[in-house]
Amino acid sequence: MGDSSGTGVCFTRNPATGAPELFGEFLINAQGEDVVAGIRTPLPIQLLADVMPDIHAELLANTTMLERHMKDMQDVEFTVQQGRLFMLQCRNGKRTGTAALRIALDLASEGLITQDESVLMVEPRHLDQLLHPQFEDEKKYGADVITRGLAASPGAAVGRLVFSAADAEEWHARGERVVLCRHETSPEDVGGMHVAEGIVTCRGGMTSHAAVVARGWGKPCICGCEKLQVDLKHKVLTYVSEGGEAHLREGDWVSLNGTTGEVIRGRQPLKKAEVTGGDLGKFMGWVDAARRLRVLTNADTPEDALVARTNGAQGIGLCRTEHMFFSTHERIAAVRRMIAEEELSSNHKAEALQELKKYQRQDFEGIFKVMDGLPVTIRLLDPPLHEFLPQEGPAMVALCRTLAAELDAPLERVEARLNGLREVNPMMGLRGCRLGVVHPEITEMQATAIFEAAAAVAAAGCRVNPHIMVPLVATTEELDHQTAIIHAAAAKVEQSSGQKVPYRVGAMIEIPRAALQAGHLAERAEFFSFGTNDLTQMTFGISRDDAQAKFLSHYTRLGILQSDPFDTLDTIGVGEMVRIAVERGRAAKPSLELGICGEHGGDPNSIAFFNQVGLDYVSCSPLRVPIARLAAAQAAIKAAQSK
Amino acid sequence: MGDSSGTGVCFTRNPATGAPELFGEFLINAQGEDVVAGIRTPLPIQLLADVMPDIHAELLANTTMLERHMKDMQDVEFTVQQGRLFMLQCRNGKRTGTAALRIALDLASEGLITQDESVLMVEPRHLDQLLHPQFEDEKKYGADVITRGLAASPGAAVGRLVFSAADAEEWHARGERVVLCRHETSPEDVGGMHVAEGIVTCRGGMTSHAAVVARGWGKPCICGCEKLQVDLKHKVLTYVSEGGEAHLREGDWVSLNGTTGEVIRGRQPLKKAEVTGGDLGKFMGWVDAARRLRVLTNADTPEDALVARTNGAQGIGLCRTEHMFFSTHERIAAVRRMIAEEELSSNHKAEALQELKKYQRQDFEGIFKVMDGLPVTIRLLDPPLHEFLPQEGPAMVALCRTLAAELDAPLERVEARLNGLREVNPMMGLRGCRLGVVHPEITEMQATAIFEAAAAVAAAGCRVNPHIMVPLVATTEELDHQTAIIHAAAAKVEQSSGQKVPYRVGAMIEIPRAALQAGHLAERAEFFSFGTNDLTQMTFGISRDDAQAKFLSHYTRLGILQSDPFDTLDTIGVGEMVRIAVERGRAAKPSLELGICGEHGGDPNSIAFFNQVGLDYVSCSPLRVPIARLAAAQAAIKAAQSK
Repeated sequence: MGDSSGTGVCFTRNPATGAPELFGEFLINAQGEDVVAGIRTPLPIQLLADVMPDIHAELLANTTMLERHMKDMQDVEFTVQQGRLFMLQCRNGKRTGTAALRIALDLASEGLITQDESVLMVEPRHLDQLLHPQFEDEKKYGADVITRGLAASPGAAVGRLVFSAADAEEWHARGERVVLCRHETSPEDVGGMHVAEGIVTCRGGMTSHAAVVARGWGKPCICGCEKLQVDLKHKVLTYVSEGGEAHLREGDWVSLNGTTGEVIRGRQPLKKAEVTGGDLGKFMGWVDAARRLRVLTNADTPEDALVARTNGAQGIGLCRTEHMFFSTHERIAAVRRMIAEEELSSNHKAEALQELKKYQRQDFEGIFKVMDGLPVTIRLLDPPLHEFLPQEGPAMVALCRTLAAELDAPLERVEARLNGLREVNPMMGLRGCRLGVVHPEITEMQATAIFEAAAAVAAAGCRVNPHIMVPLVATTEELDHQTAIIHAAAAKVEQSSGQKVPYRVGAMIEIPRAALQAGHLAERAEFFSFGTNDLTQMTFGISRDDAQAKFLSHYTRLGILQSDPFDTLDTIGVGEMVRIAVERGRAAKPSLELGICGEHGGDPNSIAFFNQVGLDYVSCSPLRVPIARLAAAQAAIKAAQSK
Repeated sequence: MGDSSGTGVCFTRNPATGAPELFGEFLINAQGEDVVAGIRTPLPIQLLADVMPDIHAELLANTTMLERHMKDMQDVEFTVQQGRLFMLQCRNGKRTGTAALRIALDLASEGLITQDESVLMVEPRHLDQLLHPQFEDEKKYGADVITRGLAASPGAAVGRLVFSAADAEEWHARGERVVLCRHETSPEDVGGMHVAEGIVTCRGGMTSHAAVVARGWGKPCICGCEKLQVDLKHKVLTYVSEGGEAHLREGDWVSLNGTTGEVIRGRQPLKKAEVTGGDLGKFMGWVDAARRLRVLTNADTPEDALVARTNGAQGIGLCRTEHMFFSTHERIAAVRRMIAEEELSSNHKAEALQELKKYQRQDFEGIFKVMDGLPVTIRLLDPPLHEFLPQEGPAMVALCRTLAAELDAPLERVEARLNGLREVNPMMGLRGCRLGVVHPEITEMQATAIFEAAAAVAAAGCRVNPHIMVPLVATTEELDHQTAIIHAAAAKVEQSSGQKVPYRVGAMIEIPRAALQAGHLAERAEFFSFGTNDLTQMTFGISRDDAQAKFLSHYTRLGILQSDPFDTLDTIGVGEMVRIAVERGRAAKPSLELGICGEHGGDPNSIAFFNQVGLDYVSCSPLRVPIARLAAAQAAIKAAQSK
């Protein structure tokens, strides 16, 4: 209807930055669909002030009114018909993490919303965006995606391709950023993984060695890229492109999107979090004021502990002692000697245990210092011992030879011993406290290392508070057995050091039977920590290592499951198990401290359930701590609102 | 004190046969310990009537009075001092199974005890003795025991040693009785296993292929004889004897005690059950009158079903369709083609399914005929598909070649498909109804075979009552998915055959989540059957395949567990899970039928629990049926007494 008519779309604030300015586009002499259809190029909304000053002023007044009414940034459509402005529709606008934070703070300071409403306005995924390095533009690299694998550890990574841990370390020493690509990783690769920007594997799932180690470090990782062919010998990676097979060689640049599982060729540009500490700090202060759940962290090293503390962790909820075993060649070698030597009375056994104790003590001292004044919850050795060995094959043959020589034992005996550790269903095998019952010397070594470290650090003026956690408890007798060893170790160290260290002993609730027996376990435990990864496996009868590819994807597609129960807690099944344990545990001991240290501890939906069921804390990976704090706050605010 | 003094020990009835006669020994001019010390040879108690007729008469009067007072056969000690009889002590006497039955019946007919008290007097292990062939004298063969393995399937077996299934079939065809010895068995060995008197394996536990198949048949089996060295090529078995290594070769006689796990060299004499049908029949009538629980059986073939029915089974509580798949070369070959062919639409897939349907239909017809009028509960395919494949190695390579040729498919694709079926924790992997969800064609084939067989047999005048059981249910959605397929198959067969067959669809409760969801599952299921083997694995987080050797033996030795939870139900843990499911299920549907078909269904202590918790039936292996009937009766009587 001519140049006094037009149409436009705008946001009441900038959806990318959150700046309090009208953001959008308009077209003169056009209908609504023309703006979004992309046929004509629209003009920036700011120019409307020049073209139609009255309309612009009226639009501004309207959008301000709409924002005041809706109490959120609005996505608005309008039309102008022969000089008259019509507001067509409005809705809460989509925004980036950066914008979400700024808008939430601004609306509160403008008095439009309360502090709690501000906390509800930033979604956990917004915070996640702010915390991980991101690609500048995920839409731009689409044509360069060479495959998709499992998004095992989020974030963006860019580096030059290497195919062995040794190469990774060598290139890194030369000052290169590298991405490590392996069929799968094993403890031998840890050094190379540590220096890599990100990790890609062809085999293995969300709990493969690569995935677990990378998540622990917050390092991007993509697993199970089964379509990639990797020739380790010639250092070539083959993938299928539109034009047939294509190759990447050692030194080629490659980018990983660990959040989506995309492996991308070339050096894709990255951007850093754009939020200043000040804004985020202020917002997180509001978050912390609103929440009831404490947020602890899963950390295995002083470095992780420091990151977590910086992120606001209120202690360590899970320190996995076995991760310390993997961290250097010397350590894994000592673990293997300990495993391979059967005779408790042998010098080799004693020496291996002594060496491991030394390493663990060092690590614990470092962690205790970083967490000065905060609780540090240490889990006794958990994984089946065969996880410390290489796969069957040449590496295993070579290891047996080495161990036979080191231990002065017949090769056949070492082979029989190590091969005898293999299990049909390792997840339900000889692991957790079953290890400590069958090999009490391991529990004794670990407990002694903890108390010696605590005593040393306490003597230097730190406030230490170790919580020792017995994993995979099924029976009260197991907990009694392990607790006795721990108390004895504490008494011994107190006597030799003259330092009395306060400590607690608790049980992990990760087997359905333990949940049912919670009343009896609570009589013996000072705290419970729910291991919801294992509890999900057992309660659901699903092996996490196998399920995704074999049937879970099928299940979610058919709608038999709404989501992967390892991502978001299955509240009606696994959650019911947790609820039973909470009720029975608290009934037996009202002061019982209750926490959760499975990966659900970092999942917002699961955190809402943990808040509702009355846990005291959640524990999650260091980089998830802010997200967990936010989710805990939102759960508390919503629970209060619904009352 | 001279020849008018003496001492003796006697039973008021014969403890070996139960005959109502004084049974014992005495010594003249001796003290009590002399009889049992074995220094002097005592005289049969009958001779006392000649030597001291008055004492003998007084003793008889006393033992009669003691029996009347104690209401059981007494083990009595007495002394005679200068012509005066002193009764020193008495207690209920130990007895054989044969004696227990006779005494129980006699005491009742003498009016000393009631029918119910008679039922309580025969222990389940007595009945077990009566039902399995036994060695004449287990004490005699002691020096010939060459090793002990796991007592995987009870009973005694004697035969000539063979080292391959083919040899077993060949020797058997010549009229020889054979004992088959293997490192482990696989589906290929089934023919040879079937003709063997008993089976020995060097590897594998209580749920290994050999153990499961042998128990299903009631055939003695000893597994996990790790100390035996078997050279299959030269057909020699090497064992360690006192004089060093010794050997047994093909054709040598060997005996197995499947009740104790002893492997014995030579041809040890056997005895049959000595009880006439009449006595046992009468007693079992009393048993059946006393019990509340129905006793069904686990049977996979018409032959097993017949044995079970003869033993008093009131139906089939578990028919494992996969056992039918193993029974011949043709069947396993068809299963493998079905597995290896990925394309649902291919002729190969359709033909394999059609062939399997034919086999299953034949088997079901046979079973329905034998069980005429009684319920037959059929479990849909349960094990992971890789259980139908050989172990990795040459056999697997050969199979892939064969299948590639048969299916006209590239070898690599067949290899990738079959190797892709392997799982890290198969027990919690793609099995049970997950198979039926991912491969609905299998459920459809099985359901159709069931209904076609039922229609055919019903048309011939049999009363058929199939109960179809969906295994490993975790969610209501899974049960709905499978039930829809079953109902559709039923409607289709009804239309084509014109025969309407009554049937039920139920859920196996064997995953903790299913127990918690029992209320919702009960709204959809017509019955529940507790699979307590798997429920124990998941609730306890214990892999049955691994646990015994790795830590359960350790646990029972330390007293952390009182018994193996796979032998006797862990009532406070797994039993609590059952109790929750019973309560929630019955609350939602009071008419819900509840049974149990795990191996606990044949264990007397577990049966007492199942009676208490209010199940409707237990199901156990055909040879355990009489024992389960007795245990159910004793549980009911004791429950009534304690009220």
